[in-house]
Amino acid sequence: MRSVFFLSDQTGITTESMGNALLTQFNEISLRKERMPFIDTEFKADIAIVKIQSRFIQDGERPIILSSIVNPIIRNKFKLECVCFIDFFETFMPELENALEQKAVQAMGKSHGMNDQIKYYRRIDAIDFSLQNDDGITVKNYEAADVILVGVSRVGKTPTCLYLAVNYGIKAANYPFAEVDLKHDKLPKILVPYHEKLFGLSINVDRLHQIRQNRIPNSNYANINTCKTEIEAAEHVMREYGIPFLNTSEKSIEEIASNIMQRIHLVRKF
Amino acid sequence: MRSVFFLSDQTGITTESMGNALLTQFNEISLRKERMPFIDTEFKADIAIVKIQSRFIQDGERPIILSSIVNPIIRNKFKLECVCFIDFFETFMPELENALEQKAVQAMGKSHGMNDQIKYYRRIDAIDFSLQNDDGITVKNYEAADVILVGVSRVGKTPTCLYLAVNYGIKAANYPFAEVDLKHDKLPKILVPYHEKLFGLSINVDRLHQIRQNRIPNSNYANINTCKTEIEAAEHVMREYGIPFLNTSEKSIEEIASNIMQRIHLVRKF
Repeated sequence: MRSVFFLSDQTGITTESMGNALLTQFNEISLRKERMPFIDTEFKADIAIVKIQSRFIQDGERPIILSSIVNPIIRNKFKLECVCFIDFFETFMPELENALEQKAVQAMGKSHGMNDQIKYYRRIDAIDFSLQNDDGITVKNYEAADVILVGVSRVGKTPTCLYLAVNYGIKAANYPFAEVDLKHDKLPKILVPYHEKLFGLSINVDRLHQIRQNRIPNSNYANINTCKTEIEAAEHVMREYGIPFLNTSEKSIEEIASNIMQRIHLVRKF
Repeated sequence: MRSVFFLSDQTGITTESMGNALLTQFNEISLRKERMPFIDTEFKADIAIVKIQSRFIQDGERPIILSSIVNPIIRNKFKLECVCFIDFFETFMPELENALEQKAVQAMGKSHGMNDQIKYYRRIDAIDFSLQNDDGITVKNYEAADVILVGVSRVGKTPTCLYLAVNYGIKAANYPFAEVDLKHDKLPKILVPYHEKLFGLSINVDRLHQIRQNRIPNSNYANINTCKTEIEAAEHVMREYGIPFLNTSEKSIEEIASNIMQRIHLVRKF
């Protein structure tokens, strides 16, 4: 068992994500991972170091530290004999300074924070928007939407909308294809004026069956034939109307969101 | 104007976040940034290279590439004279291989994806939970909650709950302190059995006034005295009942979520 610590003077979210991405390349090792955020004083560093040192004694192996601490005085404290220390800032700053022909400012807390209040409101507004426009609850705000996701129930519309709103400030509405829509092979009338904003999600029959089973076991809703009919009709409508769509079966929410953003050129709003 | 490209064989979300964190250290340069996800074949690399090269001609400056492409054949294609190429995987793999005494597997797409279906359901369940238990709509599922956020209206409860659910699979409910609760200096009865799960959000008076003004201008709700009274009463209740709380005024959603997770020891559920 090896210990890994993700250290940051901020939230450490990015450091943890990058660290996890790197560590997935080693799949035979059992790792105990811990994020240590907000290490922005020497005092907090000293407390963290005590914990890391005692982990070294406990494990009998050098803990791995993945860090993005900006302040060199705080950062250097972690360069201990008993750890393997990797710092993202320290590694790349010289190269970036060179490329940009400018010195790094070495200031903490520039990458998050609410410096820009307009951006804050934009994000909150997008979250409010996606909540209000979830599942076709209302359709009167579609003029303001950046994207309107369509598809059958449980294809992944709501999680994707919330992900887009929370992480990118994108106003994402979603509208479920109901049985009545699908029966007539027609795009619901209400959606026609917003054709340009529509993006479809589809899914494999087995996968939808499984997800619906998990939700309402042995229901008509979860029945494999229901799933098959609904998916076929939805894909038929989307093809007929030229709505771009994506199969979500093997994809994480991040992957679905990134695919949509790439295909219809949506960008971060904050 | 310098161009920056975030390249990845996956979504590129982590590469972009880390890249942005590094680039905020240079604040006098105007950058045009673009994420290029899913560069997982030589063909896609060639298309990306054409775009990057034409940007070099257009800008008259070398574009900066921040990459986390795992496959060395694809990655090496981008090591062009006309770019400044930085790759996270290439940089850190030797050091990590050394520390872990194991060769990296060099396989793509291991850090996202839905390999583990249990984890997928956990995440979707958390999102469903947070939607169902937003704003005190229902209180009957609190047994299942990982955390219940409390505080006055517009303090940041809903965005934080959704962030925790979407990004960490944490079942986060939220319950607004209503005027009637605050008037009697009592914790709402319904919350008492879940005392251990409660976490409070507070805010500065000016900031709340500003946020509410943005929402319902010149209302009693947004009035600065209303804000002051509500905040004071809410903080009084939280102190009285020993509920840990946090001032959200200067914090991003990421920072609020990280603080909560750290203080009450919540960890990622997927």
